[in-house]
Order: sequence, then C-alpha cells, then structure tokens
Amino acid sequence: MKRLILTLLTGLLLATAGSAMADEGMWTLDHLPIKQMQQKYGFTPTQQWIDHVQHAALRLAEGCSGSFVSANGLVMTNHHCANTCLSQLSDKNHNYMQDGYVAKDDKDEPKCPDMELNQLEKITDVTARVNAATAGKEGAARIKAQRAVDSAIEKACVNSDPDTWRCDVVTLYHGGRYALYKYRRYQDVRLVFAPEQSIAFFGGDPDNFNFPRYDLDVTFFRAYVDGKPAHTPDFFQFDPKGPKAGELTFVVGNPGSTERQTPWAVLAYSRDKSLIPFFGYLSEERGLLWQYSRMGKQQAKEAQDALFGIDNTLKVFKGWLETLNDESFVAKKREEDASLRAWIDADPARVKKYGHPWQTLDKALQRGSQLRERYSMIEGGQGFGSTLFRDARALVRAATERAKPDADRLPPYRNANLPAMQQQVEAKTPFYPQYDENKLAWTLEKMRQALGADDPFVHEVLGKQSPEQLAHALVYGSKLSDPAVRKQLWDGGEKAIQASHDPMIELARKIDPVARKLRKQYEDEVEAPLRQASEAIAQARFARDGTSSYPDATFTMRLSYGTVKGWMEKGKEVPPFTHFDGLYKRATGADPFKLPESWLKAKSSLDLSTPMDFVTDNDIIGGNSGSPVINKEGHAVGLIFDGNIHSLGGNFTFNDSNNRAVAVDTAALDQALRKVYHLPRLAEELEKGHQ
Amino acid sequence: MKRLILTLLTGLLLATAGSAMADEGMWTLDHLPIKQMQQKYGFTPTQQWIDHVQHAALRLAEGCSGSFVSANGLVMTNHHCANTCLSQLSDKNHNYMQDGYVAKDDKDEPKCPDMELNQLEKITDVTARVNAATAGKEGAARIKAQRAVDSAIEKACVNSDPDTWRCDVVTLYHGGRYALYKYRRYQDVRLVFAPEQSIAFFGGDPDNFNFPRYDLDVTFFRAYVDGKPAHTPDFFQFDPKGPKAGELTFVVGNPGSTERQTPWAVLAYSRDKSLIPFFGYLSEERGLLWQYSRMGKQQAKEAQDALFGIDNTLKVFKGWLETLNDESFVAKKREEDASLRAWIDADPARVKKYGHPWQTLDKALQRGSQLRERYSMIEGGQGFGSTLFRDARALVRAATERAKPDADRLPPYRNANLPAMQQQVEAKTPFYPQYDENKLAWTLEKMRQALGADDPFVHEVLGKQSPEQLAHALVYGSKLSDPAVRKQLWDGGEKAIQASHDPMIELARKIDPVARKLRKQYEDEVEAPLRQASEAIAQARFARDGTSSYPDATFTMRLSYGTVKGWMEKGKEVPPFTHFDGLYKRATGADPFKLPESWLKAKSSLDLSTPMDFVTDNDIIGGNSGSPVINKEGHAVGLIFDGNIHSLGGNFTFNDSNNRAVAVDTAALDQALRKVYHLPRLAEELEKGHQ
Repeated sequence: MKRLILTLLTGLLLATAGSAMADEGMWTLDHLPIKQMQQKYGFTPTQQWIDHVQHAALRLAEGCSGSFVSANGLVMTNHHCANTCLSQLSDKNHNYMQDGYVAKDDKDEPKCPDMELNQLEKITDVTARVNAATAGKEGAARIKAQRAVDSAIEKACVNSDPDTWRCDVVTLYHGGRYALYKYRRYQDVRLVFAPEQSIAFFGGDPDNFNFPRYDLDVTFFRAYVDGKPAHTPDFFQFDPKGPKAGELTFVVGNPGSTERQTPWAVLAYSRDKSLIPFFGYLSEERGLLWQYSRMGKQQAKEAQDALFGIDNTLKVFKGWLETLNDESFVAKKREEDASLRAWIDADPARVKKYGHPWQTLDKALQRGSQLRERYSMIEGGQGFGSTLFRDARALVRAATERAKPDADRLPPYRNANLPAMQQQVEAKTPFYPQYDENKLAWTLEKMRQALGADDPFVHEVLGKQSPEQLAHALVYGSKLSDPAVRKQLWDGGEKAIQASHDPMIELARKIDPVARKLRKQYEDEVEAPLRQASEAIAQARFARDGTSSYPDATFTMRLSYGTVKGWMEKGKEVPPFTHFDGLYKRATGADPFKLPESWLKAKSSLDLSTPMDFVTDNDIIGGNSGSPVINKEGHAVGLIFDGNIHSLGGNFTFNDSNNRAVAVDTAALDQALRKVYHLPRLAEELEKGHQ
Repeated sequence: MKRLILTLLTGLLLATAGSAMADEGMWTLDHLPIKQMQQKYGFTPTQQWIDHVQHAALRLAEGCSGSFVSANGLVMTNHHCANTCLSQLSDKNHNYMQDGYVAKDDKDEPKCPDMELNQLEKITDVTARVNAATAGKEGAARIKAQRAVDSAIEKACVNSDPDTWRCDVVTLYHGGRYALYKYRRYQDVRLVFAPEQSIAFFGGDPDNFNFPRYDLDVTFFRAYVDGKPAHTPDFFQFDPKGPKAGELTFVVGNPGSTERQTPWAVLAYSRDKSLIPFFGYLSEERGLLWQYSRMGKQQAKEAQDALFGIDNTLKVFKGWLETLNDESFVAKKREEDASLRAWIDADPARVKKYGHPWQTLDKALQRGSQLRERYSMIEGGQGFGSTLFRDARALVRAATERAKPDADRLPPYRNANLPAMQQQVEAKTPFYPQYDENKLAWTLEKMRQALGADDPFVHEVLGKQSPEQLAHALVYGSKLSDPAVRKQLWDGGEKAIQASHDPMIELARKIDPVARKLRKQYEDEVEAPLRQASEAIAQARFARDGTSSYPDATFTMRLSYGTVKGWMEKGKEVPPFTHFDGLYKRATGADPFKLPESWLKAKSSLDLSTPMDFVTDNDIIGGNSGSPVINKEGHAVGLIFDGNIHSLGGNFTFNDSNNRAVAVDTAALDQALRKVYHLPRLAEELEKGHQ
C-alpha cells in the first residue's frame, strides 16, 4: 500500500460511478450514504461528527493518509509512509529507517526535509462552472479550457497565500461532478517517533498483503507552525483499548485510485501496454536492487526504500493481472459495456447526447498503443532513472513554465503544485552517486532496448557512448547533487538554466522539446478523447441508473464504513485479531522475521494476550495507508496499513466476502510505547489528547 | 534463438497438425511435401538428396542444430550454441567466449567437457505398436503404459550400445503418429574456431531478432571418434559464394516447439500461469545478473552466458504475449475450437469416438492452476537455482532410478538419456561459488515468496535460516563442485548417496519425496488428461480436414523450404542482404556495437561489398539455431542464427508476409576466415570438403 501504486495508470484509466452494495464504497464527506448507515447499523453521523472527522484527517502529499491525534499537532501515520523522511534524516552514523527514532522531548524532534501534510478545510461544488468552460470543446482546446478554468478557480481559492492554502479542482464520477478541495498546508513536519523497521514491517515482503499479521507499522510526526507545535483542536481521541470483534468502524483517508467502472477496452489496453511491460521493468529493477544491496551495508541502505516499494507494487500487479485475465471478470465487463452501449444506441436522442463513446475509446487506445512505449521512456522517465536527472528536468521545465500564465502551464508547475515542487528540488536530501549512476546506466539501456539502437533519439542521447559511459559522465560530471546549486538554478530561472553547462541540465534541456512533444501528443490524442468518452459513458450510466453511488477513488478524502470481521479462506475461518504471543511465536531470528532487541527485551513485561493487528471489511485501497480506524464516538481504535491479498482485486471490483483492510490495534500501540519504547510522554499525550 | 525457449512450456502445450499454406511448414524428412515443392519451385528432391541431407545435419543435445561441413567431422553451428563449451574451456587467463578461439592445427583442438552431437540415422514408424499399448488406459496407467512401450522400443533400438546410439520415440501430430528416431552419438567434440563474441553477437540484445543485421554468429567444432577426426562422408559442401536473392533455399534443423494447433484454453492457461509469472521471474534475474556483472570482469564473465539467454527469452516472451493478448488472434482461436467442437457434437458416433476433450482440458487446467506455482518452484527448479543443487538432485535421483527397470524410470533417467546425464554430472566444468551462492539465495527467496513464509515445505527447507544464510552454508559446505566427488557418488549409487553427509545431497534427499509427489500429481492429473484430450482433438481434426499437413515442432529434424527474400516494414522494403560496409558504418566503438581488433585491422583488406547476413522466408523457430541453409544442390550457402521480430509470433501462427529467418552468408564466413582470422587451413578444408 504505497504511493507507487497510485501512479502507474494515472492518466490512463478513467473511471465512473458504481452502485454500492454491502459495505462497499469510498464516500466523499459531503455525500455520505447516511440512510444506508442508519438502516444497517442504526448509526446516523451528525454534521458536527462529519466536520470533526474531516478536519482531524490528513493527506500526506507523497501519497498516504494520516490524522491528528492530539491538540498539539501530533500526527499518526504508517512507518512505510515515513520512509522518505527517515531515509533523508539518516546519515553515515544513523540509520533511522532501520533502527527507529525516539524524540525525548520537543527539542529532539527533527524536521523532515521534504514533507507536506494537507488538512481538508472545505469542499465546494464547481461542476457548473467547469462544464460551462469546456462545453463543445475537443482535444487540445478542451484540455486548455479545462486547465484555464481549474487554474482560475484554484487561484481565487488560494487567495495569494500559497504557503497556507492548497486548492485543487477534483474530477469526481469521471466528470459527473467537479469539486474544489481547499487544504491547509503544513510544511514544517517533524519526526517524533518511529519504531525499528523490523517490527514496523515484521514479516517483510512475504507477509505483505497477508493476514494473520504482526506489524507495528506506525510513525508519529508533529506539525509545527511558526516554530511551535500546531494548535489542532480537531483530532481523534486515541483509545488505548482498541476495537472489539463486530464493532462498527470507519476509515477516513485518501484512497488513490480505483477502476471499478472503467470500460473493458481501457482495462485491456492498460493490461497489455502498461501493466505487463511495467511488471517486467519493475521485476528487473527488483533483481538489480537485490543484487546491489548485497554489495554492502551502505548499498543495502541506499536501495531499501526503492526495494520495498517495488515488492509492494509487484504484489499489487500480480493481483491485478489475476483479475484482468480472469475470463468471468472479462465477460462481465464486456456485458456491462455492451448493455450500456445498447441502451444509448436504442434512442436517437441518447445518441445525440452521448455520441459513440466506445468508438472514441477504440481510436484513442489505438493511438495510445503507438505512442505508449516511447512516451513512458522519454517523458514518463523510465529511460532516465536518475534523481539528478529528475531534478534537472524539474529545473529546466520550471524555468520555462513559471514564465507563463498559470493556466497555460503543465499541471505540475501550476501555482498549486509549485511549493511542493520547489521543496522537493531544494530539499537537502542525501545523494548516493553510485546508486544514481547505476540506475541511470540501467534505465538508459532499457530505453535503447525499447526504442531500438537505430532510433534517432537514442543516437542523440547516447552518441557513440554506451549507457554505462554516459551515466558515469553525467552523474559524476554534474553538480546538481548540491542543494545550493539546485536552489541557485531554481531562483535564477530561465537565464540561469540557459547559461548552465552542467551536463545533466544540458541533457534535460536537449531532450525537452522531444519529451514535451510526446507529452502533448499523448494528452491531445489519447488522454483527452479518453476522458471525453469516459465522461459520456459516466453520464449515460447516471441517466440510466440514478445516483446512489460513490465516485471511483481519486486520492481525495473518503469515508468507508464496515465492521471488525475475519473471513473464510479455503474453508477455514481467519479470525479478525492477532496478539503479541503470535508475534513471538512467528519470530525466527532471521530477516524478515527477526525481532529488534527492544521487543526481545520487553517480552516478559508485556501482556501477551494484547491484540496486535486486526482486519475489517472497510472498503479501502492504496493511498489509505496511515488512515485512522475510528469508532462511532470518533475515537481512533486502529491504524490502517495494508489490505489482505483479496483486497488487490478491489481495484476493479469489491468482494465483501473476503476483501479485508488490515490495521494496527491502538492497544498494541499503547503497550509498545509504554513497555517496549518506555515513552510515557508520548503515550500520555495520546491518552490525554494534549501535551 | 536458444535452448531456453524450448523448455518453458514443455509438457504443457500440446499441439496438433495444421494445413500448410505458402512456404509454411516444418516437415519431417520421411513425409516431405514433394508435390508442393515441385509445383511451386519445379524442384523434386530425390531420395538420395533427402538421405544425404538427413545424414549431414546434426542436433546439438543442448538445444541447437548444426551440420557436417567436411568429410573429416568438421561441424558448423552458431557461436551462441557454443556458449557452454566456450565458457567451460575458459579459465582465469583465457576468455574464449569473449576473445574467440583459433586452433592452428588438430592438436590445438580442445575437447568440450559437456557436448554431444546427434546424427539422425533412421526414422521408423511405431504408431501401431504405441497405440496398442496405451489403448483404453487413462491417467497414471496411461503414462506408465506409454513409458513402458517407449522404453522397450528404445532399448531394442540401442541394442546394448548406448555409447554409440541414442533412440527416442517421438510423438508427432500430437499422437496422430509415433516415430522412432535413431541417432548416432558423438560425445568427443572439440573446438576448432570461434570468433570474438563482439562480432558473433554484434549489436547484442538491441539487434537480437532484428534485421538489417551484421553478425558472424559461427563456431566450428570437430567430431572425433577413437581420438581421431570422425569420417563423415555425408556433409554439406560449403559454397563460398553464398546465395542469390530469390534463390530457393532449404533449412534443415531441429525446431524446438510450436503451438499452432493448440486449443485456446491451453494457450490462455500457459499465458496466465506460466508465461507471465516466468516473464517476471526472468526479468528479475536479468536485473540481478546485470548488477552482478558490474562487480568486476570475473563476475561479468560468470554471468554472461545466462544474461544472453535471458535477454533472448524475454524478447521471445514479449512477442508471444503480443500474439496471445491480440484480440483478433484470440477470437480466431476460439472460433477454430468452437467449430471443431461443434463438428464432433453434431454426430453421436464422433462423440463416442472422441469424447468431450474440451471438458477434459478445462478440468485438467483447473487442476494445473492449483499445482503450477508449487510445481515450478519445487520440482521445476525455480526455487533451487544452484548448479550444485542441480547436480545433487541428478545424483540422488539417478541412484534411485537406475535401480529400477528402464520402463519404470523418470524419463531423464531412462537408458536413452543416461549417458548425457552422466556426462553432465561428471563434466569438469568450472564452478563459480559466488555466482552459485548468489543465485541460490535469490531463488530460495523467490520460493518463500511464492509459497508463503508459513508453508510447511518452506519451513522444512529454511528452518530458522534466511535464504542467504542457507545458500551460503550449502554452497560453501558442499564438496560437489569437485567432479571427482560427483563421479564417486554417481558410481557409488544408492548406498553412496544414503551415506553422504554433503549438505547439498542432504537437501536434495530431504525434499525429493515432496518434489516427486508433485511431479507425479502434475503428470497424472494435468499432463496425462491434457495429452489425451489433445490427441482426441488432433484425431478429430485429421478426420475432418485430411492429412496434407506437418506436425508441430518437437525438437526433431525438419526441413523447410523458401526463398531469399526481404519484406515490407511500415511501408518500406527491407532488402534481403547486408554487407561488410554496413557493419563498419554501424560500429560505434561502444559495446555492443564495438568491433574486435581483428575486424578493425582487416578492414582495408576486405571487399566491403561482400554479403554478410541475409533473410529467407523459410519457416523456422527456436532450436533451428545453427541450421545450415542449403540450396538445390545440397550445398551450404548460409547459417541460420535468428529470426526477425515477426518470427516470434511464428510460435502460434505463420505469417509469410513478414516472418523471416536470419542467416550468416557463407561468403562472409569464407572472407572472415581468410582475411580477418588468417585461417587458410580451415577455409580450404571447407572449400575442398576435407582436410
């Protein structure tokens, strides 16, 4: 469950509304299924309950969820959502990712170099305004109009204070609705506590997406404002007892994306042109990183974050491929498409209104097939896998884009995204030249492999050099690993970029026209018609089926409801809770089942019947990592960190019989803080709700 | 085009006869389409011509083809078919794979430690006898009966002289026909000449399966008998002029396998349960080996053979997936199946005769889905990727199997295969402990990943150790890297194996019951019903469509006919020949486009208009590597080493408009031997036909 899984199909898979059954559904907070909740569980959330939940929940800009758990800005999220900060704060003498981190008091709380929290302030419906702006437009003109209206709405919302506010126009129900999401930004985020990775990720990749499970996948941060802990009156009161079996639970968080209403043609395209090739690419990268890690402790440290992300993603892909190659799923999708298509075609008025969206899809996907591989390599970054190159491209593009009006810019360089982009480019993150050179050499080779050695672009990039030679020259010749140099280039704008002789900047500059052209082609000739066709399909479905439905996930705030509940696996019941005693039984002493010293020492002082992890049938997906599990009272009783193996198919279809969310029990968190890490300070802040 | 591609789907994909069109077809030498050849090309091969071709052509036991090209046992094949020998003969001071090898005279010809050539002596139809033995039997009983009759036929054929004869009962037309193939064995094979890898495989993976192409992918061996060059009166006279555009050409060789008549259900199963997972597995191994190679020259040498094989296979897999995910191909396959099924169901007499083979398929494939991953890991070897383990398993099994009657043994331990197995086990091949440990650690991890950390088998193998710890203990604790130890265990039989405390032998012994059980389950519950259903389908197709067809490839000798001919690529003509001048233009100085010194030096003395490589529309597939291209006179005019990118789909369907075989021109070989390698001795032996 990690941000990687949010990005792969973005911009390709466009999705629409479905009708919810059982406890299915990732609901927007302004349209909760109050009646269904009342009928099934006798619980009706008040507007006050909803507002409180909305303001206590958080989004992590890098692709996770979290929540405030004290009035003094204390934030709870997953350890695996803190990987970047933990790696960046580590140095030659400290490996916080591996060994954990404990702040004894406020002064001990170091700032994460590159972290942003977003607190959802307000949701405003802007459907009418967006529709008015794009009406009757197609292709490039449509994209331009959409960007212009988004930009104007967002600009007014930010109101010249981009350090405080982030505003996004969000497409919901695939264009059935547009909403303005206004977030408060927290960019000063400090590390309070992280456990050792060996307990946070106990069982490692073998146990990932599995249950029974024994992970303490938690990290606490603290949001600061003006150098002091933030005042956060909306927070989830921490319940050190945890939930009971069968208890009604809510998960609030930011599910990344689902494709439950995506037409089959688009899914088939994604499988063949994106998923399968990228499955091979990531598998290869995994092997490379596995071997790289064996070179020494330093190399293992450099690679561990990426390795973790890849293992996670590969498991997701396998689950997806299983569903996408399942003949009965495919048949069902085909039928759904055919029935809606027939419904449109049956009435000339409908044809006039919705057109022939499946024909539009087919044409766009055909064009996509021609462009896809080249696009992924050159513009998608698969051919240039170096952090220095990533920064070089961001600097080169930012210089050009910032000189344009906001509405004309590429989306990552719009004002709403610019602070995060600048923070990333200027962050004082450690740089590993051997790692970067290695990955660049490999990705350049992959590019040559994909485009062919005779491709003029490949010739232009490599000249007479091998990928290894070029990567070496670029990485060791560039000065971009110095944050000061990057800051200078950012501040210097287009003039500084044009004057730079840094080889990485020169490369980014040289290939930018080709990359931008590909991006534009892909947007205009593939994405725009896909979006238009998908909107038409979504609107037709609304017209036919009505509106008691939730939009596919879009990495914006959603609430799901369900209960603490196991499931039947091959005829056997999987109970909903694990306990500390199971953890000690499962430990072998060898990685990834090796317990840290702290837990071995604490064993005798722990009540081994304390619940550790549990499962619920809440409907979640990647991006929900770090979401709090709350009860009717709005108290935190758990911390989502994973789904079971059956949850992977949840990307395409929800199966309430076996799709389960996996969470850390707050009882385990309380006991670990007190008896394993001897942190009464933190445990009491959680219990009291303030410092 | 390498042996790897012969193994993946073996035992899974069962195929039947098709009707040939155009120059399609890989024909058995006892049933050539004489009439079609006569009608289209006005050429009728005489029986003498056919016999000569049959005896001059060779099969390399490891998965390639070759031919005699002088009366003194001189053998021509591909450089990439000599990888194993070249690596095995190399040592700390010599890298023959990279630098090539030149024997100045006979005394300079070193013996390949582990190489066997097979010359097809005779084909005998044994269909009636096999059918009589298996009639009315099912499942395990059928397998047993088939093995018993195969063994009896082969035993009589070998006639107590297994060092001279190899006899195989071959299943053709998927059980439409059985034939006994009797081969003469050559186990004393010596290296005569190999060029540098940088010219043999010029363009490397980027150019693999592409054309225009500039490879001198050749190696010459010599077969010896009783310590002297073999007397081989049947050989292909070498034509130093090469072929002309449009000339009629024949390719004789051993295409490995095709699936042109395989039912869709089986192909879908192979795609989802075998091809896609193995695509991920090999991609990961590629990354690992890529990184391993960067550790140093020694490591690069250790990994290069495997890397080459994987690159090749991955390209094949991509081509296959493209066809298997192509909606129109799938629709066509479904239609073909449905029509044959309807034909059977239309007549109760047919139903009585052929049964309901598609139902049998579905049931067997469902069972296969349950067993497949476990089977691949434990019995298929994907979880134990160590050469020491491979030898340990062979020794453990050989000890048990050799004690049984031939007919009851597992196929690799039947008398026909035993000499090759023994040669492999006892071969004095170099052993790379770091490489072996590395690969074993990785594959053990893959096994744990696939079966789950809680699996009892995984517990039994790993205990409380990590994959890395266990791999280290096994590889450095075992003495099996010593050929004398292996020989001792082979000779000592079951008693020696039981008494051994070698940790690798102990592991192989420990897991053998589980592995054998899986193998038996897979054979009895998946392969046997699949084979039975496929036979019924094949027989029904014969009954409906007649017999002017060729059997799917089975790594036995086939002849295909065609002409030297380019093709149209995206509206442009690709001419059939490349020439030396193109090679020099394409060279960049950087790997894999870096020419060896010898070619740089020789440039001025070469006629740059000499043809180098060429394409024909002969129907070939993996396993044909090293096949001679011959003309009507039976003279060698080229040497097959690859197919173009469109040839990959040839596994499932032949497209004569763009499927092309790629060969080295004999004119290039002649000039290279004379002017680049200064080997008049060898060039003249080729020209004269004897030493």
